Amino acid sequence: MDRRNFLSRAGLATAAATTLAAPAIAQSVREMTIVSTWGRDFPGLGISAQRLVERINQLSEGRIRAEYFAAGERVGAFDVFDDVAGGNSQAYISADYFFTGKHAGFAYFTGVPFGMTSPEWNAWINYGGGQALWDELSAEFGLKKLPCGSTGTQSGGWFNKEINSPEDLRGLKMRIPGLGGNVMSKLGVSTVSLPGGQIYENLVSGAIDATEYVGPYNDYFLKLYEAAKYYYVTGMHEPGGGNAFGLNKTWWENLSDWEQAIISAACQEENALGAQEVAAKNGEYLARLVNEHGVELRNFNEDVWDVFGEAAIEVHEETRDHSAMAAKIGDAYMDAMREIGGYRASAEVAFSRQRNRVFDLG
Amino acid sequence: MDRRNFLSRAGLATAAATTLAAPAIAQSVREMTIVSTWGRDFPGLGISAQRLVERINQLSEGRIRAEYFAAGERVGAFDVFDDVAGGNSQAYISADYFFTGKHAGFAYFTGVPFGMTSPEWNAWINYGGGQALWDELSAEFGLKKLPCGSTGTQSGGWFNKEINSPEDLRGLKMRIPGLGGNVMSKLGVSTVSLPGGQIYENLVSGAIDATEYVGPYNDYFLKLYEAAKYYYVTGMHEPGGGNAFGLNKTWWENLSDWEQAIISAACQEENALGAQEVAAKNGEYLARLVNEHGVELRNFNEDVWDVFGEAAIEVHEETRDHSAMAAKIGDAYMDAMREIGGYRASAEVAFSRQRNRVFDLG
Repeated sequence: MDRRNFLSRAGLATAAATTLAAPAIAQSVREMTIVSTWGRDFPGLGISAQRLVERINQLSEGRIRAEYFAAGERVGAFDVFDDVAGGNSQAYISADYFFTGKHAGFAYFTGVPFGMTSPEWNAWINYGGGQALWDELSAEFGLKKLPCGSTGTQSGGWFNKEINSPEDLRGLKMRIPGLGGNVMSKLGVSTVSLPGGQIYENLVSGAIDATEYVGPYNDYFLKLYEAAKYYYVTGMHEPGGGNAFGLNKTWWENLSDWEQAIISAACQEENALGAQEVAAKNGEYLARLVNEHGVELRNFNEDVWDVFGEAAIEVHEETRDHSAMAAKIGDAYMDAMREIGGYRASAEVAFSRQRNRVFDLG
Repeated sequence: MDRRNFLSRAGLATAAATTLAAPAIAQSVREMTIVSTWGRDFPGLGISAQRLVERINQLSEGRIRAEYFAAGERVGAFDVFDDVAGGNSQAYISADYFFTGKHAGFAYFTGVPFGMTSPEWNAWINYGGGQALWDELSAEFGLKKLPCGSTGTQSGGWFNKEINSPEDLRGLKMRIPGLGGNVMSKLGVSTVSLPGGQIYENLVSGAIDATEYVGPYNDYFLKLYEAAKYYYVTGMHEPGGGNAFGLNKTWWENLSDWEQAIISAACQEENALGAQEVAAKNGEYLARLVNEHGVELRNFNEDVWDVFGEAAIEVHEETRDHSAMAAKIGDAYMDAMREIGGYRASAEVAFSRQRNRVFDLG
């Protein structure tokens, strides 16, 4: 236990002794250190994380004093899991598929190839049993999770050549984390997982030939068009993209009901707002990529989608085989996708197709 | 001003005099009466409204004391707008398209035929300029609005005969409010707007031949299958279905920043959760309608969608012609739909189509 951790535990004991009759100005303050995988002020993900932390401070009237450290400001982008599990920080903001090295099942709590879109995933997490499974898995690592943002269906990515057939994938070096990376590996792609801040230098230097990141709004600011001009507008690998607010479980369980409610409301609010901000801006930024930077938009053809699908089915099988827990999560996820996604196919997706046809959209 | 209103204004003055140094237990309480269009404990809409009110009480630690009155408990389902505008209650939970008699522009703040889906509408409201227009229109009536729930793409509705061609619509008597009702009127349907609690009796008695309501989860509990066995799974009339939290504007503006933040966070949280709960349950309840009650599922064919589309374009033109404000809102709405919906067509909708094809969903 380091000094910071000791202080936060001391703060906790003081809070427990507070009663409603104490003067408001003398009420103890709950210190909360939050570390993140996203870069400081990065449009989309970074701004969303910072807005969430400010909201915790605002809603609690400063009785929770949350301090935010972007990637690299306290620990490295991918070190946040261990930092919070070990109690050095109280919470992280990240995407849990970065931590499939800890457990394969974490992939299902961000996004998996051919998996649920964000509206489907959120329905599963909050009302379909997903949260209980996420908590069960996370408890093995001393963590408690809440959803705190999503990116919508992610773009297929940036390529320095056109992908016209499955053969064109073979031999590519691509940044693509999570199970999407496993799918690409099966198709002959060399895959790597890099935080957002390291993608540009690797693409420009030729260390990688291709990368996915998020979508037009986030990707615009990485300037990836300088090194790869073909942009595939939708991809198979992260149809939902739920972000994770990972709390130290012991710390969380020692909070009052009210403190838990404040943190949970702020996370659920930002879970929605983060996705909405990106949805509001993707169209505008896609047009800017094309008009300002000469980016060429492409869609994978049906042959490519078919091999993606075959490889994705194998990857889901392999993920199930990792452990009983991975199988339990994977099966629950697929059941939810069939029920929730199946209905949406006949409702929102069917409607969208008719509207887009009649009003000539998209 | 009635006695209740006088008391709430008195409470307001007391609150303004409170300082942070006062003992917490003696802090004044902000009384808040909330009236609703939804029935008490009604699955989906009613439960969502009640959860929102409880959350305001919880997050504020009782410093806002919100009391909820379901439809008919204090005022009638459709009287909530006037009750709040007049200051007798502080807020309502409803859908603003019930109030197109006040101003045609309100239709755009619930759902319009061939309009935005909920993810699109929320992006427009929170990050695309929609909230400012909603507030500008509402201010004319002494109201301030927040989004507080949505139902997803609504079902096409319940019919006591099959609709195989545009001719089959002619002469039908149908419950369908808002601009969707105007579309149906153009196609020879006699339309009526009724609150949820009055639909069943009108359908059973034969006063109406058809009705839409929400979707499988909400509709299941209305037992409409007893009087109309054909269920059209997706409709043109309410693709989004945003609900409204309508506040008395003067009361809202007298709240502290913190009180506004608590109410706004609770509304944004429930705006997401309400939609997710319905999305999680629609698939299950659609199956129950079929398996337990012999409901027959249908989809409108392309001929019917085409005449819906032609009539919807006329209805949008007529709504624009209502006033400069209606035109301003309608144009902004259509611009947002083209940009936000156009991108989603190439991203989430395109992905969903490929996933549903490869995984045989929907």
